[in-house]
Amino acid sequence: MAIRTGPTLADIEAARERIGHVARVTPVYASETLSRRSGRTVMLKAENLQRTGSFKIRGAVNKIATLTEAERSAGVVAGSAGNHGQAVALAAREAGVAATIFMPQNAPMAKIDATRNYGAEVVLVGEGFDEAQVAARERADEGATLVHAFEDEVVIAGQGTLGLELADQIDELQTLVVPVGGGGLASGIALALNELRPEVKIVGVQAETCAPFAGVEPRGHTIADGIAVKQPGELTTSILADRLDLVVTVSDQEIAEAIVLLLERVKLVVEGAGAASVAALITGKVGGSGAACALLSGGNIDATLLIEVTRHGLTQAGRFLVMRTRVEDRPGELARLLALIAGERVNVLAVDHHREGMNLPVTGTEIELTLSTRDEEHCGELLVRLAEWGYPTERVS
Amino acid sequence: MAIRTGPTLADIEAARERIGHVARVTPVYASETLSRRSGRTVMLKAENLQRTGSFKIRGAVNKIATLTEAERSAGVVAGSAGNHGQAVALAAREAGVAATIFMPQNAPMAKIDATRNYGAEVVLVGEGFDEAQVAARERADEGATLVHAFEDEVVIAGQGTLGLELADQIDELQTLVVPVGGGGLASGIALALNELRPEVKIVGVQAETCAPFAGVEPRGHTIADGIAVKQPGELTTSILADRLDLVVTVSDQEIAEAIVLLLERVKLVVEGAGAASVAALITGKVGGSGAACALLSGGNIDATLLIEVTRHGLTQAGRFLVMRTRVEDRPGELARLLALIAGERVNVLAVDHHREGMNLPVTGTEIELTLSTRDEEHCGELLVRLAEWGYPTERVS
Repeated sequence: MAIRTGPTLADIEAARERIGHVARVTPVYASETLSRRSGRTVMLKAENLQRTGSFKIRGAVNKIATLTEAERSAGVVAGSAGNHGQAVALAAREAGVAATIFMPQNAPMAKIDATRNYGAEVVLVGEGFDEAQVAARERADEGATLVHAFEDEVVIAGQGTLGLELADQIDELQTLVVPVGGGGLASGIALALNELRPEVKIVGVQAETCAPFAGVEPRGHTIADGIAVKQPGELTTSILADRLDLVVTVSDQEIAEAIVLLLERVKLVVEGAGAASVAALITGKVGGSGAACALLSGGNIDATLLIEVTRHGLTQAGRFLVMRTRVEDRPGELARLLALIAGERVNVLAVDHHREGMNLPVTGTEIELTLSTRDEEHCGELLVRLAEWGYPTERVS
Repeated sequence: MAIRTGPTLADIEAARERIGHVARVTPVYASETLSRRSGRTVMLKAENLQRTGSFKIRGAVNKIATLTEAERSAGVVAGSAGNHGQAVALAAREAGVAATIFMPQNAPMAKIDATRNYGAEVVLVGEGFDEAQVAARERADEGATLVHAFEDEVVIAGQGTLGLELADQIDELQTLVVPVGGGGLASGIALALNELRPEVKIVGVQAETCAPFAGVEPRGHTIADGIAVKQPGELTTSILADRLDLVVTVSDQEIAEAIVLLLERVKLVVEGAGAASVAALITGKVGGSGAACALLSGGNIDATLLIEVTRHGLTQAGRFLVMRTRVEDRPGELARLLALIAGERVNVLAVDHHREGMNLPVTGTEIELTLSTRDEEHCGELLVRLAEWGYPTERVS
């Protein structure tokens, strides 16, 4: 078998011509907050603002643009738990080709809706990505045209157009940090940048619970579902072995903190996979020096998950305090406590009464308070004040 | 007194030259979702991605760049509950001028921190914007240089640079929708666009509880705090009376829905004031036809508020169902109910027990369930299924 080295720079440049009428050139921003946190200049490539909310549209448009007439009229199929499905749906619609997307039955409604809104037929099948992928392959065996998410030179060439844009947009680029799932994105970008900017160090990031490129056996769930690929492709594995300078891993906790920073300070909604690159930078795992760019690969995070992550991030930063105390079960006692707290300029978000508890005297009521605090120090001060006022305190989170 | 007509196009063009080294040219995006919702092409001017998170940096940089040496060495002061303070702080730092920002004592910690991080001295005073403004004026009377948020021709010229960018960026622009608070932003943009694109209709948006430009007496709080200005300036009032084609108002409910749409579909974090323009479009209040652009004036929304708004928006859209039911107070009863719900592929987010309720039989336990649902129809189906299984149901939200 011939050694497969992936698309050439000319292939990637041809892809740029083909995708320009559908995909956007996404902006690059310097972030003062992230630069301070990382001790180096941090730029962000905001591919979360790409059409369909992720880079996948680049590869999908390039692939569909290069199909034969027979392949087009057979219709395209893809198996996807998310971004690739939306991308193939839109790319097919723009090219006037029929699309069927197989998605897991538990896929978030927002993703199913978005895919349908792009005009694709959505078939819900099985419990996860693997079963959706098998169903897509079966349909392809019956004659439809499969658009694989990463194991395809033409798809990789499409993703590589991001490398061309980065070379145009960031003169001082020294290090690029790219999320790695199936490996198509990192492969395409590395092939382009190695030619145009051989001095740029390219660092791949994986979630620590699913990091085959870092030699870690997949062992669990991650909020970075977009890069939770247990089995990368042979082609992408071969390209990345050659082209990546380093692969690092980040935890869900680190990714969650990056999501909250991007939301609060950069005003961008970024999904777990996309925020993994920022997580790697702010935790100092990337190494090297000089200007670094984090690729924000996508923004398709379920709003329910975004709420959970943000709430968790704020709690970690001491911006929420959940605590229990006890008050006498008499009129006015709760009001007195709340007035004292208000005097400290602390906003009360929730009050829960627990009248049945292990350690409650008969006339006592346990109160759980959720408070909006300024930072960890403020939480500590408040607990001290409550103790001074005579309230027993127990911190919940 | 001479009639004051505000800055000229030449003033605004000069401002563009002055601010370019600090302010960004922010991107414009077409949004498929918002176009579908509005029945016309909707473009978004993403000024939430501006440095400091809002357009205010434009006016602040222009103002500080035109100060005399004496005014610079006196230091600048501003009263602000948020965006203007951050903008003056950064503009002053970049110009090497000392800045003092007066902010209300209850200002969100995130805004205070951001202002301090830009190097300004922050003085917390009083309960709201008015007292901060008075304190800034007092300091100015003692010799410091006041940078007003809107009632200043040089500040207005800075905000007007957004009009120049829009004229460059959107050839097909027919209608521009601009949030209106003090009126400086709308004045500057209208003065620029009236010259360059006289055919563009300019629509101002205010929050319905604080809409002096719509002739409504201010009467309450709004989540669009950035445009909650009870007393606009004489200069801006005079300019806008002449230049706005229409002023419309939107409710907090409508603004909240726009914030959630921008978050989920456009991947942008936009504050209440900034989302008001989108709210006006999707509710059909703007009128006219052809391509409309909504100005997303800023992205500085407190993360705690963002969580609340998103949660509320998801509940409105049927993506959360909060309901009460009763189970017998016996081992296994709750597990049985949860297993039935799981069989419907519904995710349970929270379970609360209420053992003391008005209508509970002695052996019953009231359960409040928070469920993650797909849409309003799904909520209805689920309630029907629960009733079929013999559970009494009461919907909470």
